[in-house]
Order: sequence, then structure tokens, then C-alpha cells
Amino acid sequence: MDHSGGSNASNNGVRAAMADEELSGARKLRYQKVEDHIRRMLSSGEFGSGDRIPSERDLADLLHVNRLTVRKAVSNLVSEGLLESNGTGGTRVAAPTFVRPADIYRSVGIDRLIQNHGKAPSNKLLYFQLSTANSQLADRLGIEEGQDVVVIRRLWSIDNKPFSVETSHIPARLVPGLAAEDLIAGQSLYRLFKERYEIDTINADRIISVETTSELESKLLDIPVNSAALAYRLWVKSEDGTTVEYMRSVNNPKVVAFGTSSAEGGWLSATK
Amino acid sequence: MDHSGGSNASNNGVRAAMADEELSGARKLRYQKVEDHIRRMLSSGEFGSGDRIPSERDLADLLHVNRLTVRKAVSNLVSEGLLESNGTGGTRVAAPTFVRPADIYRSVGIDRLIQNHGKAPSNKLLYFQLSTANSQLADRLGIEEGQDVVVIRRLWSIDNKPFSVETSHIPARLVPGLAAEDLIAGQSLYRLFKERYEIDTINADRIISVETTSELESKLLDIPVNSAALAYRLWVKSEDGTTVEYMRSVNNPKVVAFGTSSAEGGWLSATK
Repeated sequence: MDHSGGSNASNNGVRAAMADEELSGARKLRYQKVEDHIRRMLSSGEFGSGDRIPSERDLADLLHVNRLTVRKAVSNLVSEGLLESNGTGGTRVAAPTFVRPADIYRSVGIDRLIQNHGKAPSNKLLYFQLSTANSQLADRLGIEEGQDVVVIRRLWSIDNKPFSVETSHIPARLVPGLAAEDLIAGQSLYRLFKERYEIDTINADRIISVETTSELESKLLDIPVNSAALAYRLWVKSEDGTTVEYMRSVNNPKVVAFGTSSAEGGWLSATK
Repeated sequence: MDHSGGSNASNNGVRAAMADEELSGARKLRYQKVEDHIRRMLSSGEFGSGDRIPSERDLADLLHVNRLTVRKAVSNLVSEGLLESNGTGGTRVAAPTFVRPADIYRSVGIDRLIQNHGKAPSNKLLYFQLSTANSQLADRLGIEEGQDVVVIRRLWSIDNKPFSVETSHIPARLVPGLAAEDLIAGQSLYRLFKERYEIDTINADRIISVETTSELESKLLDIPVNSAALAYRLWVKSEDGTTVEYMRSVNNPKVVAFGTSSAEGGWLSATK
């Protein structure tokens, strides 16, 4: 037994300390009971992203605790990022804030999509380099191995929160004279294709999957290393069927979801 | 100091043990050096899902090790599920094996989609119950809170490997007489809608996001609890615009990706 420190405390002192401990234990248990209940509720599958959870009053009645206890538990889960509180709209299961359309035929700049959500887009050109295609990239772009490719990497943010690292690969022969400067102001590639190179582009095939972020991607997106992220791969073609761009983006899954719609023009028109 | 066990070993014995340890350490380091190199390569972002990695010979040359060392490292990473080896096709970064179309207008049974991939589909009815809509579900289905809803949960497998837990919600008044038995044989809902209830359905809106699996979902999909999974939510409508089904599925991200295509008829026709 270790008798060091406080071994001379009076019995009263010890009792008081124990009572305090019990009390704080009991208090913790009450919040935790509510937190645990909400966690179980969320993981039961009954509630999905964006769903409203029951009101403070309903939870208090259900769990036989007072509303302050519920408020504290909810507030803790909001801090953890599990729930979202939007003032009068009640409390919801945290959901991605930006649904990117994955089915529109014509390219639309990300900046416009974000503005449509009433948010402020921004982007940063991370690098712009001339490279040569390895066999993989050559396959993807329908060019010969060793041919020149322009590689462009950009970081996109909404309201200054980074949400996507986007890497584009373009056969260099299609974009003679393209320079980093052309992209600095957040110029969209499809607009450059159209206006400078007179290539009308369409979004052809897309694949959405879960991938683990690299160290660099995690750092850029401000999420833990080896997080699961939404990977989005897109093949852009000209109207004659030539692949003009292969793009891969890695998206913060707390911010981004992808949507498709049967509405003509795709998700974008369905949500407008 | 603990002198129990082996404290009487001869100096020679100790030296031999140390040499063995060093040797095995060196051996381990050689494999690990190669494994580490491949891991860095994968997390650099240069290689994505499904990409071929350099050949055994190229890696051996590059890292100044023999091919057996490379083979061992690659074989370890295949066992870990990071790489995939498909015989003559070389070694690739592990990729989802089943790209589900997220853009087809007309419903197609999952079973047919899987058969198109040359694999064997199967499904298990987990539950079939009559429930009442809470406010959330009522919003989603466009019905009144408290109205009856049929809830159907099924587990889908490819080649006996579970990949998706799918929960459908259908306003009960649209499917009078529907029973669990009707779904036991893996009958698709869209076929039941069409043939028994004479409702032509279209796939309306879809949202694809990353969600954390619940304990139950993890168990069913045989993945770790709190894994990131691909969540897929789908609204099915009749031709007059009535919502006939709200479906949410949770998909194993090692097996499933979602695809969209500009080809007429969507991804399905693009990949056929």
C-alpha cells in the first residue's frame, strides 16, 4: 500500500473527499447517461446525417433527467462534432455541408456551386508542373507513355475551411502555353478549355469511393492522417471523345457528399 | 534485475543468440525497407485504387535488393489487403471490386448488376416489419407522421462476401398485402412494385457520403466497429412524382465504389 501524500487527512476530510467524488461521479454519470443514449440512438441506424434528434424536452422526459443535463450532453456532442446545432432549427446529426453534383453533363466551376450554397469559395494553386505520363496515366488519358502532361494541384475551401485537394492531369499538347499564372485567380479549367483552346468539354465517367488520405492530403485538409476520405475521379472529354483531363480529388467527408438526381440537368437543377 | 531463466547460458550461447537476433533483424529490415517504400509510394498520391505498382524486377533494381525480398514484401502487403495480386496482371493497389451505378434512371436489381460483373449475388432478409413514420421519415416519404411504413432490411453479398446492408422504407398504403415471404427469394422491390402493384418507378435523388458504421452494421459487413463506410441514400418515385421508397444502404468501402457516366443510360451502359 502506498501511504505517501494525504495519509494524515482526518476521517472527515476523507469522507468529504469521497462524497465529492461520488457527487461528481453521479453528475458525470447523468450527463454521460444522456450522451450514451444519444450515441446509441445515432448508431442504431434510425438517425442518419442531417436528421433532427428529439427535442431537449422530449429527451429529458424520456430519460427522467432535467433539461439542463440534456443541454450539457448535447453541447458536449456538438463540441465533438457528432451533432450540429443551428439555432432555431434544433439539433441535427452532423452532416456534410456541401453536396457536390456527380451527374452534370456540362462542367460547372466549383466556385459557382459553392456560391449557390450561399458560401464563399476560395482556392489555392499548390503546384503546376510539366511531367511525363507513366503507363497508368497514359492509359487513363489515352496517350502514349512518356508524353508530356500538365499536372495541376489545387486546394479548395468553403468559408476558409479546406475541403478538397484536386489534382488534374492534361495532355500538354492540348493546352499549349498554359501557365501557372492562368490558374492563380481561381480560373476554372473548363472555362480555359472553352475560351482559350476552344474545346467544349463534357464530364464523362466518374467514380466515387472511400480512400485513405496520405500524410500530405491530411495536412492540407486538416484531418487526421490515414482518415477515410471521399475520393472522386473524373474523366473530362471533348465532344469528339478525346480525353482532355483526368482529375482525382480527395474530399473531407465531414464537409462533402456527392449527389445525383433524375431531374434534367442533374443534381444541380434538383437542388436549385 | 531479473536473473530468472537462461541466466546461466554460456557466453558463446549468448553471442550466438545475439547474432541470430541481429541477422533476423537485418532480414526484417530488408523486407520492411521494401514494404515501407511501397507504403510511402501509395500514400504519396501518385498511385490510386486499382493502379499497377512497378514490377518486382523494377522495385528490386530501384531498392538494390533481390527479387525474393521484393516478393516477400509485396506478399505481406497483399495479406494486409493493401495490394492485390491477380496472377498475370501484376500487382495493383487494392480497389473496390464492384462499381455500383449511381445514375441510372430505371431501377435495375442489384443481382443483375452483380451478375454483369461475372460474380454470384446473394441476399438475406434480415427483417421485415410494419412501423410508423416519425417526423423525419414522414418528411422523406412525403407522408404524415404516424402513418404506417413497411421497413425492410437486407444484407447483400458478392461471392458470399457481405458488402451492403440496405434498409428500405415504403408507405404501407402503396404495398397492401406485402409480406416478408415475398422478399425471401431475393425478389427485387422494383419488380414487385411493377408486377404486383403496377407502379413504374424511377430512381430520383441520391446522396453518397462517408458515414461511420454502427456496431450492428460492422458485424453484418464483417468490418471493424466505427469503420468509415460508403452511405448511399436513394429516393424512388413513381412516374406521378409520389415517393414510393426511401432507401439507405451502408457499403463496405473495400468492396464498393459508385460510378456515374455521361453515356446514355448511365454508368451501367458505359461499362457493358
